[in-house]
Amino acid sequence: MAELSSAEQAALGSGADFWTTKQVGAVPAIVLTDGPHGVRKQVASSDQLGIAENEPATCFPPAAGLGQSWDPELVERVGTALGRESQAIGVHVLLGPGINIKRDPRCGRNFEYYSEDPYVSGVLGAAWVRGVQGEGVGACVKHFAANNQEHDRMRVSADVDPRTLREIYLRAFHRVVTEANPWSLMCSYNRINGVLASQNEWLLTKVLRDEWGFEGVVVSDWGAVADRPAAVAAGLDLEMPGATGTTDEELVVALSNGTVDPAHVARAAERVTALAIRTTQAHREDATFDADAHHQLAREAAARSIVLLQNVDDLLPLNSSDRLAVIGEFAEQPRYQGGGSSHVTPTRLDVPLDEIRAHADVTYAPGFSTDGSGDAAALRDDAVQAAAAAETAVVFLGLAARQESEGADRTDIEIPAEQLELLTAVVAAQPRTVVVLIHGSVLRIAPVAAIAPAVLDAALLGQGGGAAIAEVLFGRVSPSGKLTETVPVRLPDVPAYGNFPGENGHVLYGEGLHVGYRWYDARDLAVAFPFGHGLSYTTFEYSDLVVETTDSGIQAGVTITNTGRREGREVAQFYVSLPGSAVTRVPQQLVAFGSATPAPGESTTIQATIDRSDLAYWDIRVDRWVVESGEYVVSVGSSSRDLRANAAVVVAGDEVRLPITLDSTIAEILRDPVGAQALGGLIESVFGTTMGEEAAGADMGAMLGALPVGRLVGFSGGRLTRAQLEQLLVAANPD
Amino acid sequence: MAELSSAEQAALGSGADFWTTKQVGAVPAIVLTDGPHGVRKQVASSDQLGIAENEPATCFPPAAGLGQSWDPELVERVGTALGRESQAIGVHVLLGPGINIKRDPRCGRNFEYYSEDPYVSGVLGAAWVRGVQGEGVGACVKHFAANNQEHDRMRVSADVDPRTLREIYLRAFHRVVTEANPWSLMCSYNRINGVLASQNEWLLTKVLRDEWGFEGVVVSDWGAVADRPAAVAAGLDLEMPGATGTTDEELVVALSNGTVDPAHVARAAERVTALAIRTTQAHREDATFDADAHHQLAREAAARSIVLLQNVDDLLPLNSSDRLAVIGEFAEQPRYQGGGSSHVTPTRLDVPLDEIRAHADVTYAPGFSTDGSGDAAALRDDAVQAAAAAETAVVFLGLAARQESEGADRTDIEIPAEQLELLTAVVAAQPRTVVVLIHGSVLRIAPVAAIAPAVLDAALLGQGGGAAIAEVLFGRVSPSGKLTETVPVRLPDVPAYGNFPGENGHVLYGEGLHVGYRWYDARDLAVAFPFGHGLSYTTFEYSDLVVETTDSGIQAGVTITNTGRREGREVAQFYVSLPGSAVTRVPQQLVAFGSATPAPGESTTIQATIDRSDLAYWDIRVDRWVVESGEYVVSVGSSSRDLRANAAVVVAGDEVRLPITLDSTIAEILRDPVGAQALGGLIESVFGTTMGEEAAGADMGAMLGALPVGRLVGFSGGRLTRAQLEQLLVAANPD
Repeated sequence: MAELSSAEQAALGSGADFWTTKQVGAVPAIVLTDGPHGVRKQVASSDQLGIAENEPATCFPPAAGLGQSWDPELVERVGTALGRESQAIGVHVLLGPGINIKRDPRCGRNFEYYSEDPYVSGVLGAAWVRGVQGEGVGACVKHFAANNQEHDRMRVSADVDPRTLREIYLRAFHRVVTEANPWSLMCSYNRINGVLASQNEWLLTKVLRDEWGFEGVVVSDWGAVADRPAAVAAGLDLEMPGATGTTDEELVVALSNGTVDPAHVARAAERVTALAIRTTQAHREDATFDADAHHQLAREAAARSIVLLQNVDDLLPLNSSDRLAVIGEFAEQPRYQGGGSSHVTPTRLDVPLDEIRAHADVTYAPGFSTDGSGDAAALRDDAVQAAAAAETAVVFLGLAARQESEGADRTDIEIPAEQLELLTAVVAAQPRTVVVLIHGSVLRIAPVAAIAPAVLDAALLGQGGGAAIAEVLFGRVSPSGKLTETVPVRLPDVPAYGNFPGENGHVLYGEGLHVGYRWYDARDLAVAFPFGHGLSYTTFEYSDLVVETTDSGIQAGVTITNTGRREGREVAQFYVSLPGSAVTRVPQQLVAFGSATPAPGESTTIQATIDRSDLAYWDIRVDRWVVESGEYVVSVGSSSRDLRANAAVVVAGDEVRLPITLDSTIAEILRDPVGAQALGGLIESVFGTTMGEEAAGADMGAMLGALPVGRLVGFSGGRLTRAQLEQLLVAANPD
Repeated sequence: MAELSSAEQAALGSGADFWTTKQVGAVPAIVLTDGPHGVRKQVASSDQLGIAENEPATCFPPAAGLGQSWDPELVERVGTALGRESQAIGVHVLLGPGINIKRDPRCGRNFEYYSEDPYVSGVLGAAWVRGVQGEGVGACVKHFAANNQEHDRMRVSADVDPRTLREIYLRAFHRVVTEANPWSLMCSYNRINGVLASQNEWLLTKVLRDEWGFEGVVVSDWGAVADRPAAVAAGLDLEMPGATGTTDEELVVALSNGTVDPAHVARAAERVTALAIRTTQAHREDATFDADAHHQLAREAAARSIVLLQNVDDLLPLNSSDRLAVIGEFAEQPRYQGGGSSHVTPTRLDVPLDEIRAHADVTYAPGFSTDGSGDAAALRDDAVQAAAAAETAVVFLGLAARQESEGADRTDIEIPAEQLELLTAVVAAQPRTVVVLIHGSVLRIAPVAAIAPAVLDAALLGQGGGAAIAEVLFGRVSPSGKLTETVPVRLPDVPAYGNFPGENGHVLYGEGLHVGYRWYDARDLAVAFPFGHGLSYTTFEYSDLVVETTDSGIQAGVTITNTGRREGREVAQFYVSLPGSAVTRVPQQLVAFGSATPAPGESTTIQATIDRSDLAYWDIRVDRWVVESGEYVVSVGSSSRDLRANAAVVVAGDEVRLPITLDSTIAEILRDPVGAQALGGLIESVFGTTMGEEAAGADMGAMLGALPVGRLVGFSGGRLTRAQLEQLLVAANPD
């Protein structure tokens, strides 16, 4: 860095244009483009937001789909493919994974995120990073942090208490950073407790680097920087897109004014340089990718991501000999990814209708239009006729692209009314009806599940979704996806209802730790489909849960037996709880998962390692993770509400001894052996025999116990001065 | 003040002992004692918390009971009686009213507070103050502020967003201060957003004095001062109890060190002096009170506070000719007030059993014991036998003193299981069963209401409760009380579930504005009994709702017709809503109430004045109350969920024009005529025709509209510098 001038250092810290960094001296320029589910390299910067025509690339399932695989190995293979395509297309950093928590089903960008749960988000995010970076392409974990809505996303302050921030909203980032070592990370647009993420020193330096040891580049989300010198001081390294040098000049002025530390500018330049060198050295000029193989992988990933929500009387899988009515515009004009910056131009595209036709005899009727065109009654009547004439109906329902997108949150979670009317009419004519749901974020499915015997959740599946749906419908693949987000009965039940999306610049995370299933479990609320739910064409039995403590946490094992007659894969989920905890605990929390594919009649054991860090809570008294001693209950099951076995195990916790101060209560002091020794006599002398007595119907012991010891001065009737008390406190805090 | 030394000024600012201030020079000492529902003057300071034997005084219904009257005129008369008793007993300041919001049913001190709603709390609190102060005795409104739990009450920080703080937790204080001019106010123990109430300059000076114009004395809750100099600087005037000069010395030292402003010490001394002079001048040495008349008033207040929750087949009122079984320990050993500092020694005490015996032939059986003594099965069997042998059973159920008290929160809202078992057995033997509930805070009543045809909520009724219960049972008084707190179906439904009582020094008010009925309405949750509910022995019809705007708000009138055959009083409640509001609004909010007692077959009109201030919301952008323009819907009814009529009225709101800054979004600027004029051309030139287009499935108009204008620099491709933009902002903000 010593060789570079201040101006050159500043220049390294902002882009040359929308997608490229600057070449400065010997430091090469690199290309960053959107992911995460495909490489979106623009043909030309034809618009100011960088959303325009792209070079074709494989469109894998967006996170809303892929997450439902609960399959880190698969996600890593997708990452590897993305890395290869990045190499072939000339991309050095692929912007992903998106691992924000789905705090509310209305968030417009939920389709880009994995889950409402930080464990599954972190595990899958880390796998994606390993895959991409294994090919010499940088990952860029995003959006850091607490970016859980689109409404006013560039200004809104996510007002989150520190424990919730740590345990829910930062936890997946912590996992990805420490386990997968991403080369870069993207700060989000929003504020966190009043401070813009791009200017948040606590977030970008204290937590990310000092605590977690992150050594990569912090990139701004595109347009997230409001004040470049403040951002650089906080720990931002690279502003994107390039403001063509404007903010570089601001930074140079700030340097000459002494309002920014030269060391901060240098450290940013160093990090950008390191990333540029690392990624250009790893770049393979002659790289290509096998579009056919990647399309197959996209199909495989899609098939594994489909969730069988309901299958009354085993209506699924279908027989190829069935005459089918396929209904719904989405069958013919597939929707397979979300709108906005992640929108990929696919290399090819499976159309569900065509793929189903390859298996069986099909009559197609659109049934409805998503843009209001056509005669709704006529469309419906045609569909009902087709259903009545067939042996089974397959109805595609869901949301059109414009109904969920980056940049806007939804205001409801409804399936469009005309689609529900259509479904009602179809089921009346044809009871053997299968619904295939196409959507990026949670819908109110209860009305569908109430009338259709079989429901497949096809989420958004990428370019191979069409074939995948057909394979699942006809049993070529037994579905094994599981929900990564709770499906509520109705919108007013959701945790953040009334606190989403906030207003006037603030959104209160009032539900605290109780996000997703944590909320529904704590409030004992019925749900339409629980977190972790997903059926199979076969059945599984759980047995022989074994749980033991290890130095690093808990080791658990469970045996899964395929008790049905088909092949199938089961994702077993391990939840932990700590009854009688000294702090607020959610009723259960996911801490591990694993899968098995035993053949019919056979058994496989799943081993799960539960790390101590996943048992810990964030203790705001000492500002660190603490494992509480106690008897933890480990439960394992097929969903968060279909637990099959549990076992208790004693874990020795971390010691926390708080210093005794004037603000310590009498009860706290008397519970502490050293404190009781030092101050017990005094407390007795001031209150005499009053402790623990009952007076006037009040529990005097409780009232006195809650008194901070410093207040004894006022209650001592002159027998005690503050100076005397402070003297005693010295003895209560040896060394 | 100039005549007093610093030491003398400091001395005025703390008590001489538990209940008395110091005489300093010509400034007399005054006596402050606990209220609010009776004058609790201790015989001697025999314990360190000041809870010991007291001089007899009339025990009026605690706020949990009295509030159910919804009768400010009655509350004012009770206040007048309390003022007279204070004069007679030698008390200058009576510590009340308690107007904290019942945020959660588990708060141990809810019995001392009126309601979950700030309007009814404020109206009744103001009436109490007028009554007491009309007799020349100072009121002391408490506990200021956000003191909504007992757990860790001396340290916990109530973490509340500013709008909620203003609209819910400060609103009743605002009303009492501005409408009733209390001579003193008590700061609470807890912290508010991290700052102790006793040291909270924002609360005690900026809001209370600068905004609301409070001119009285701020007294500390007993033991609430942790740092006297900091408290005095923040606006505290009087520390209680007296620390026998210890903290006076600290204050003098701080004065000599220059760490406290002499003007702050002087202002506190001035205020205490003014209160001492005012109350001693108003003191009547020869005052007495008429204990008989006050007992009658206590009975009247108690009768008006009883709520008839349910009365299937008009089981109530009872006939004097009925042979009754009266069951339940509470009938013989009445519980009529809460435990803790407000505990009064009554002048006499009506025993419900005796009062009922005065009306009818009674067999009594205790049925259960609240302390676990006796043979539960034998107690139950005796009661069942008595019930079977009688024509009607009256069963007293509820909580014992130790089950709800100052100093401790409850952990459930259950009626003790043995009482429910008893009730089940009694109802099986005697279907004609009336339940009388005795309790200070909300219980889970659903299991009672499911089996007992008639249920009276007798809350806590003070020393006249026994006669009042009998009068209501036998129809001498038709019940007219209404719930001031929602009765939920179950504990996990309550708003603060999961956020109560917090831990490690913080409690998050995560439900925000959605306290009480505001929560159940917003979440569309079923409740056992809604806010405002209360039946009568007669029936009322509502008609002719007339609503019109006035300069000061809305004037509403409604006609109430007694359509039954008995005398009765109806409390009509007016709620307001603003559909389509630009900010979060609760579905409905109480803004007025009034009562009428039309004779059978006759009608009375209730007029209600809805002040503009009760339509306003707290706008955090400008830190002030704002009335939004729009069509407000005024509903009137017999409870919050038994609305009988509604009418819409257009209200012209307040203007709010925000300055346009770099953080203003493009959409905000284009909506503002001056902003659009100044910046519209620039925006057009940077984005050209992109605005409003659709690309890649995203709504570009929405995405661009949400962009803060300052970020245009980064997206302009070099066509715009920050300096140019700032130049344009000048034009966007004329004057």
